[in-house]
Amino acid sequence: MFQLLRDGQPRTRADLAAITGQARSTIAARIDLLMASGLIAPAGEASSTGGRPPVTFAFSPGARIVLAVDLGATHARLAVTDLASNVLAEIDAPLSISEGPETVLAWVAETGEKLIAAAGRDLKDLVSVGVGLPGPVEHSTGRPINPPIMPAWDDVDVPAILGKTFDASVLVDNDVNIMALGEHRTAWPTVSDMLFVKVATGIGAGVISDGELRRGAQGAAGDIGHIAVPNATDTPCRCGNIGCLEAVASGQAIAGALKKEGLEALNSGDVVTLVRGGDLMASHAVRQAGRDIGAVLAACVSLLNPSMIVVGGIIAEAGEHLIAGIREIVYQRSLPLATQHLRIVTSQARGQAGVLGASAMAIDHVLSPAAIDALIA
Amino acid sequence: MFQLLRDGQPRTRADLAAITGQARSTIAARIDLLMASGLIAPAGEASSTGGRPPVTFAFSPGARIVLAVDLGATHARLAVTDLASNVLAEIDAPLSISEGPETVLAWVAETGEKLIAAAGRDLKDLVSVGVGLPGPVEHSTGRPINPPIMPAWDDVDVPAILGKTFDASVLVDNDVNIMALGEHRTAWPTVSDMLFVKVATGIGAGVISDGELRRGAQGAAGDIGHIAVPNATDTPCRCGNIGCLEAVASGQAIAGALKKEGLEALNSGDVVTLVRGGDLMASHAVRQAGRDIGAVLAACVSLLNPSMIVVGGIIAEAGEHLIAGIREIVYQRSLPLATQHLRIVTSQARGQAGVLGASAMAIDHVLSPAAIDALIA
Repeated sequence: MFQLLRDGQPRTRADLAAITGQARSTIAARIDLLMASGLIAPAGEASSTGGRPPVTFAFSPGARIVLAVDLGATHARLAVTDLASNVLAEIDAPLSISEGPETVLAWVAETGEKLIAAAGRDLKDLVSVGVGLPGPVEHSTGRPINPPIMPAWDDVDVPAILGKTFDASVLVDNDVNIMALGEHRTAWPTVSDMLFVKVATGIGAGVISDGELRRGAQGAAGDIGHIAVPNATDTPCRCGNIGCLEAVASGQAIAGALKKEGLEALNSGDVVTLVRGGDLMASHAVRQAGRDIGAVLAACVSLLNPSMIVVGGIIAEAGEHLIAGIREIVYQRSLPLATQHLRIVTSQARGQAGVLGASAMAIDHVLSPAAIDALIA
Repeated sequence: MFQLLRDGQPRTRADLAAITGQARSTIAARIDLLMASGLIAPAGEASSTGGRPPVTFAFSPGARIVLAVDLGATHARLAVTDLASNVLAEIDAPLSISEGPETVLAWVAETGEKLIAAAGRDLKDLVSVGVGLPGPVEHSTGRPINPPIMPAWDDVDVPAILGKTFDASVLVDNDVNIMALGEHRTAWPTVSDMLFVKVATGIGAGVISDGELRRGAQGAAGDIGHIAVPNATDTPCRCGNIGCLEAVASGQAIAGALKKEGLEALNSGDVVTLVRGGDLMASHAVRQAGRDIGAVLAACVSLLNPSMIVVGGIIAEAGEHLIAGIREIVYQRSLPLATQHLRIVTSQARGQAGVLGASAMAIDHVLSPAAIDALIA
């Protein structure tokens, strides 16, 4: 019954009983419980054919808040949103994930509390916290699993640690998954099959299939950085294999190749700076990275038949070179049936994709049918 | 309410009202409609604490039947099943799909009618027909889309043609998709993320993610035959690209390579015969095909993180060589997180996978919540 109200339309008790087939008494009791929880509120009176007009009720997204946390390798972005993912307050700060879970999560807890206060809200309004981390995460437990760039976080119970500060459910996922979710919900909510690709220091993807984020058996779906690039050179990868996409086409790989040519390129940001400054060698390198990424995405397109590929991450912000290279190979290397309606575009949510996705993940959890059933049981 | 009963457990009206929260009067009315449709039946009396013991109701899978049709390039298999996919009658016959939709579908209609009669059932018991075709199908309309090996079938309205004979819904899908569905439902129903790979004259896959078959935006998901094999030779493919999996590792490709070496190999069946006869060259060729398929599946594993790969199709029946080659490369070429719980096995449903999947697809349609809601509205 509550799921019906999530569209924001006001409805009367009689409307809800008619649509759900549930008894009037059941509906009335559930409305009382949802009112008490703050999730719905009276929304005026319906027109009446006579007698006292009945009261309508509607979803009340502003009544509660969630904290959205997007942790990257070297930065953090936090946002306080309402239950419709409207951002009420936001902060972006440098923060190294390698400082370890105690330091980083203490900062998140303290900054989160301040941000909630800055948004003029109370800690007791907080119903859920969504967190994105730059490594593999077992979504069901919220624990990172052998995360390569943040080894100190392995198997850390992130929900338990944040639960000391926040009396709210804590959901954790990989950063690329929450970016995919944020991009999908805010920019392309009606697209059922979409791939989101992040091209930054590393390369990863998020899979949206039949409208939902798919995480796979261990939460490792979308981990495309170590797929072999067809006909790639023998570039060794830190994973021990050769020719992995990340070893050939990541921001770090591009920077390394440009540095060998004598350019000042230590990281992804330097690559973007060079391309924006008009450096031809850097532009060509990014375009070739796009082609290599395109070769791997062509395989992904054959397997999943998405109608949209969205490219995000800092390298995607270096102009059209990356996406031009991706388009060139994907359209050449996939079958016509899979590409005739395929769009390949750059991210609309950009830097906000992560926090918007973390917010959506947290909201989906607290407003899920199971959670609402427990609330009104 | 009906979905609850699909587990086969008998329940009273009071049980159903308590579980669903629906009014007793609603439950009673719906039970009457479901009884009239034959989908549920009284299943004895519940124990009582006093007074007249209440009647229980249970799903009645034998009350209605579906016709399952698995059409391959050169064979057809038809089965009549009940609503729990129990096979009541079955027939396997040579039939060339290239004879075109009129001839083939007329044969299906005539043979289907006879098979229903042979199962001792009446045409009016038939509620749905499920059909698998060896080419891309737009599942929502049941029409093949540019199918390479059956061009005369392009855009043919298969449901309309079979609808002339059968007063039942007709669902159509790609043959590998229905094999994946049949294998999943009968052998691995609790596995949430699974890839099914068919290795026969061609190569294709079916994607099960979060427990459901995923078809992609145009129904072309799983079309892995034209993914480029990493470091493949420059083998040209009939699609116009080079190094496609199907050009390198399909039954047809293996037969072609063996023929060049002077062996009598015209098709997949000949390859199986040679391997079973102990021919070393044929065994090695199948193992190498397994490695090439493994290289493509390693990419699929990185993207989707399945916990199981099931290998079917005629080449999988040539002993362990194919799967040994697949295992060798998938375990070497994927990240440990994605492979630590990954099992790679041969098909359990084997030749029956297609009809069992076609049956499951047809049943899912007629017993879907939307279909049942329409029935009891």
